[in-house]
Amino acid sequence: MIRVGVIGATGYTGSELLRFIFSHGQIELTYVTSYSFAGKSLPEIHPHYRGVLEHVCASFSLEEAVDKTDLVFCALPHGEAMDLVPLLVEAGLKVIDLSADFRLTNADTYLKWYKKEHCAPQYLGKAVYGLPEIYKQEIKNASFVANPGCYPTAVLLGLAPLAEQGLVDWETLVVDAKSGTSGAGRVPSTTLHFPECAENFRAYKVAEHQHTAEMEQELGRLAGKRVAFTFVPHLLPMVRGILCTFYLRPTVKIKENEVWDIYREFYRKEKFVRVLPAALMPETRNVYGSNFCDIACKWDPRTGRLVILAAIDNLVKGAAGQALQNMNLMSGLKEEQGLQLVPLRP
Amino acid sequence: MIRVGVIGATGYTGSELLRFIFSHGQIELTYVTSYSFAGKSLPEIHPHYRGVLEHVCASFSLEEAVDKTDLVFCALPHGEAMDLVPLLVEAGLKVIDLSADFRLTNADTYLKWYKKEHCAPQYLGKAVYGLPEIYKQEIKNASFVANPGCYPTAVLLGLAPLAEQGLVDWETLVVDAKSGTSGAGRVPSTTLHFPECAENFRAYKVAEHQHTAEMEQELGRLAGKRVAFTFVPHLLPMVRGILCTFYLRPTVKIKENEVWDIYREFYRKEKFVRVLPAALMPETRNVYGSNFCDIACKWDPRTGRLVILAAIDNLVKGAAGQALQNMNLMSGLKEEQGLQLVPLRP
Amino acid sequence: MIRVGVIGATGYTGSELLRFIFSHGQIELTYVTSYSFAGKSLPEIHPHYRGVLEHVCASFSLEEAVDKTDLVFCALPHGEAMDLVPLLVEAGLKVIDLSADFRLTNADTYLKWYKKEHCAPQYLGKAVYGLPEIYKQEIKNASFVANPGCYPTAVLLGLAPLAEQGLVDWETLVVDAKSGTSGAGRVPSTTLHFPECAENFRAYKVAEHQHTAEMEQELGRLAGKRVAFTFVPHLLPMVRGILCTFYLRPTVKIKENEVWDIYREFYRKEKFVRVLPAALMPETRNVYGSNFCDIACKWDPRTGRLVILAAIDNLVKGAAGQALQNMNLMSGLKEEQGLQLVPLRP
Amino acid sequence: MIRVGVIGATGYTGSELLRFIFSHGQIELTYVTSYSFAGKSLPEIHPHYRGVLEHVCASFSLEEAVDKTDLVFCALPHGEAMDLVPLLVEAGLKVIDLSADFRLTNADTYLKWYKKEHCAPQYLGKAVYGLPEIYKQEIKNASFVANPGCYPTAVLLGLAPLAEQGLVDWETLVVDAKSGTSGAGRVPSTTLHFPECAENFRAYKVAEHQHTAEMEQELGRLAGKRVAFTFVPHLLPMVRGILCTFYLRPTVKIKENEVWDIYREFYRKEKFVRVLPAALMPETRNVYGSNFCDIACKWDPRTGRLVILAAIDNLVKGAAGQALQNMNLMSGLKEEQGLQLVPLRP
Repeated sequence: MIRVGVIGATGYTGSELLRFIFSHGQIELTYVTSYSFAGKSLPEIHPHYRGVLEHVCASFSLEEAVDKTDLVFCALPHGEAMDLVPLLVEAGLKVIDLSADFRLTNADTYLKWYKKEHCAPQYLGKAVYGLPEIYKQEIKNASFVANPGCYPTAVLLGLAPLAEQGLVDWETLVVDAKSGTSGAGRVPSTTLHFPECAENFRAYKVAEHQHTAEMEQELGRLAGKRVAFTFVPHLLPMVRGILCTFYLRPTVKIKENEVWDIYREFYRKEKFVRVLPAALMPETRNVYGSNFCDIACKWDPRTGRLVILAAIDNLVKGAAGQALQNMNLMSGLKEEQGLQLVPLRP
Repeated sequence: MIRVGVIGATGYTGSELLRFIFSHGQIELTYVTSYSFAGKSLPEIHPHYRGVLEHVCASFSLEEAVDKTDLVFCALPHGEAMDLVPLLVEAGLKVIDLSADFRLTNADTYLKWYKKEHCAPQYLGKAVYGLPEIYKQEIKNASFVANPGCYPTAVLLGLAPLAEQGLVDWETLVVDAKSGTSGAGRVPSTTLHFPECAENFRAYKVAEHQHTAEMEQELGRLAGKRVAFTFVPHLLPMVRGILCTFYLRPTVKIKENEVWDIYREFYRKEKFVRVLPAALMPETRNVYGSNFCDIACKWDPRTGRLVILAAIDNLVKGAAGQALQNMNLMSGLKEEQGLQLVPLRP
Repeated sequence: MIRVGVIGATGYTGSELLRFIFSHGQIELTYVTSYSFAGKSLPEIHPHYRGVLEHVCASFSLEEAVDKTDLVFCALPHGEAMDLVPLLVEAGLKVIDLSADFRLTNADTYLKWYKKEHCAPQYLGKAVYGLPEIYKQEIKNASFVANPGCYPTAVLLGLAPLAEQGLVDWETLVVDAKSGTSGAGRVPSTTLHFPECAENFRAYKVAEHQHTAEMEQELGRLAGKRVAFTFVPHLLPMVRGILCTFYLRPTVKIKENEVWDIYREFYRKEKFVRVLPAALMPETRNVYGSNFCDIACKWDPRTGRLVILAAIDNLVKGAAGQALQNMNLMSGLKEEQGLQLVPLRP
Repeated sequence: MIRVGVIGATGYTGSELLRFIFSHGQIELTYVTSYSFAGKSLPEIHPHYRGVLEHVCASFSLEEAVDKTDLVFCALPHGEAMDLVPLLVEAGLKVIDLSADFRLTNADTYLKWYKKEHCAPQYLGKAVYGLPEIYKQEIKNASFVANPGCYPTAVLLGLAPLAEQGLVDWETLVVDAKSGTSGAGRVPSTTLHFPECAENFRAYKVAEHQHTAEMEQELGRLAGKRVAFTFVPHLLPMVRGILCTFYLRPTVKIKENEVWDIYREFYRKEKFVRVLPAALMPETRNVYGSNFCDIACKWDPRTGRLVILAAIDNLVKGAAGQALQNMNLMSGLKEEQGLQLVPLRP
């Protein structure tokens, strides 16, 4: 049994990590910390864990972490992880960081998008970007993984097959993203107050969302050149799920069925990406609670545009599920171990 | 008092028409018909009307319609309206048709998008397109108005100021639309079954929605040339509201504040279009139950794109409210008579 | 035109008051205050008011209130109203207080249920309890009205006809109440955080809700004796609406249709209480946004119990709409003036 | 590996059965039938099963069922199961029937509540009532189990500890139940049409729900006498979850903590019933997607009433999860095998 710890178990991402750790089968939860709820048991923080996992959350201690675990998931907020993660890495632990702090490789880019100086710039670029469908080999050899954000996961999986083959005319790319509210975390705010959110729909951070940097960095790597595109996120009156709609013109003449083929080929061996049958479209509910990403495409002959659609559960493939997938790879386990859950529908 | 009738009072659009007719003040409901519920009173069909409007629905009779009304709202489904509307027009009644049957001016286009032969092609082009913010003068003089669809209303209001000035590079235009479920009407279906819809989000009729024809016809008229763009509608897990996000490159170099100015100027005299203050974004809840359309714009300097956002209540500005607005204009009443309702929030 | 003020326009109740004031027709909003948003305009606080009401909120000043208004609605939170309301009353203004501070007539009861010493006990019992269907005459003559709470309104309207005739065996009465989230107000909290509330249902303050005192006081007055019953509120994953289900045994043998008759007779002249046709049941959506209370009953022959059901919109008949109804009565206007809105459905 | 079949895989219950069968580990799905979708693969019926379970649904054949399975779950609608189940039982298969057809032991009661003559009355009383927390031993020895309904499961688990000890004054019992929409099944109807259900709440089948018979039969058995009580179900604007609120007077003087103790003792060995810590209350979200039943109690000293609350996921502990629990018991497996899923929250 691999001994794993969760640093920051209070939030939604932490809670989801616990869910997958509990049912994994080959790992053991040996250390759980919470800053705001130290001393409380998991069911006191997450009442649905009663009778399931009843660990008491500790205050973080590096010594204890090193002593008790082989691998830690760090589920701290952006800006807080960067203080702690380097210590864990230095101490020789395997680390999967779910924050944004080590996804970007450039400190200036971090400052520009997160409006905050990075406090451990020497660690930027040290983590492997934990998107297993693209960096599987690197992740297998990694001891420090930066787990992708929820929007970047949907966007990269949705575009990678075309990007890698140079088929995206980047000038034409628009990404219209829609997310459930759990992506914004567990801290109450006016924006996420039930009466303000229910029966309401709106865009936010229009063309300014901080995840844009991460997406452009990674798509640029796949494309072999700098890329920039317009990304607009919207808030859905629901809890879980991201659907991204991509609009682009291909660089070459291509038929819809050829595009489907490219996607099927690219994800041929992947357990968690489902390229749908032609004519079907992704629905967030079909991936609810699961680690799947559903993808479809549609050719618009009237405008010469490709429309690509990708759906994930933001808390699973967009966070905790993907982190477990990375852990499996880093630990030599079966990639899908503990992640073969059926989506919950209805 | 103007005597008005509602042909087809069973559906959601019919129900909303009744709401606005009830509180209008200068019109009187003198005739209501329903095909499926003839002989039933309004509260038997729409229980919230108990104690408000208790008319009994008749089966349609042309004679009665002519005898009892000065103006009729026709709220029949697409494909059924075209049988009836010509009779009403011929009989000399003022007619506002809320179906799609007389919005297109070309029978071939109708066949192509609605997959049905038009049975009264000689009436195509005879109706004034009832978007008051653009065709106010024509509507004032009209006796036959084709009331715009919900998506077209949001799209046309969102693009008209730029389209009219030739500022849209049509090649670059993408419209990503999201609608609540009431737009799909009152007939139950698997797609709109509560457990299938709630906590779910998906696209539908990707790049193939029949309203595309109407939008391109009207935008083409404003632009002075044929235009085509990609339109993708999505289904929101909520009841009312449409938000459209438009992505386009302008034809000339232009600053964000100039765009705001163009919108403010264009809608300067309009009571129902609210160009928001810079930095604010439309939310569907801010127009809930009202005849408002809220619009904002955002310049993305990284990609040279303009993002425009427009929100309406699909049943009000996208259907019944707009129909009343047209009726006011056709009848020489104040344009906003009976439509000055505060949006319902929360 | 009557000049009215709203003290505390920031919350949901304040916002609803503004909605009804705007469309009333015979009153004028001359004074609006907000503690937390003084200096801001209404659209900055409630964005849906843009282009509708654009007053700037003042800090409260007694002098200004007296100078500018004939009647004020006080929409301050419980515990804050009691500081201010006596000043307004003393100054000779007509006052409708929407807080709980002057509904109870006994300072000990206030302390017991609100866990707070009342700071103006000499005013307890001075306000008329503003439930127009029961105290119409008193309200007409009143200059100080305590507007009932949302649960008490539904409970009192649901039970008054039976209580008044001595038909309730109080020992057997159980009230199971369910409310939308807007009743809890506009301040964000974990409980009302969208991801915690959506797709969730729970009871709260089981048999301990502070409104119980108010209901028992008023039902006791109708019954002519002290009464006590079990009241359990629940939180619905929706925004507006209260449905109460009452279970009781009648004191005498009575048939279901006789119960219906008692209700119809009791509310015969009332514009805002709709006793449904037999076999129909209330739905919150049928009163959404309106001042209606819908009531039905059902006899359970197997157990000798009556089940009564009553639905209101908590922000309207349960707060702002009822306050306007009281204002109409206090001001000699038509009771339904400005309140004849059709419920919003769907 | 035990070979299991699912008769009627189209509905929500069938879909949930598949979910638990998939992740069970010691059983194998060898036969799946669907009347309405024979010839279709599971992902064509339930798109979230793509890449998970891809069996093609057969038309039912008794021969095949016998040939291919050791145990079958029958998930046919009430009234259809009674034609088929006797054949399966006769053929020597272990049968778990999820319909209501064999839960009642009396044909007259069936006729009275289901308004339909039972076509296999000789089988009434032959099935073990599959509530493992009460009939564990009988289920272990059974080859034919009638799986309880969703409301009965919540009601029986909520009352069994008190009923068994004779502590319920049945004259005083009221059960106010609230259910998500998935309990009504997958067939679209006006009632469950999204725009009719969302932001709406109502009671239905007031004091007339057909499950009442089943609850009274089973509670009567526990109480050792005929019992009758008032049961009122309500429809929640959400997908999954039942919360029942019970109101009763105890037959003896008893303190709240003694009630808690009775519940804790009664369910001491049960894996799926969580008696909450005092002061906590059940929330449907805490059992979402899981086989848990959460229970709490509250003493109302003012009225001498006990309030009990119980929450389940109607599709899991109220249907498919419980069926698997029964299968485990009937097959000599660990009772919780394949059912140890963490509730999905948020």
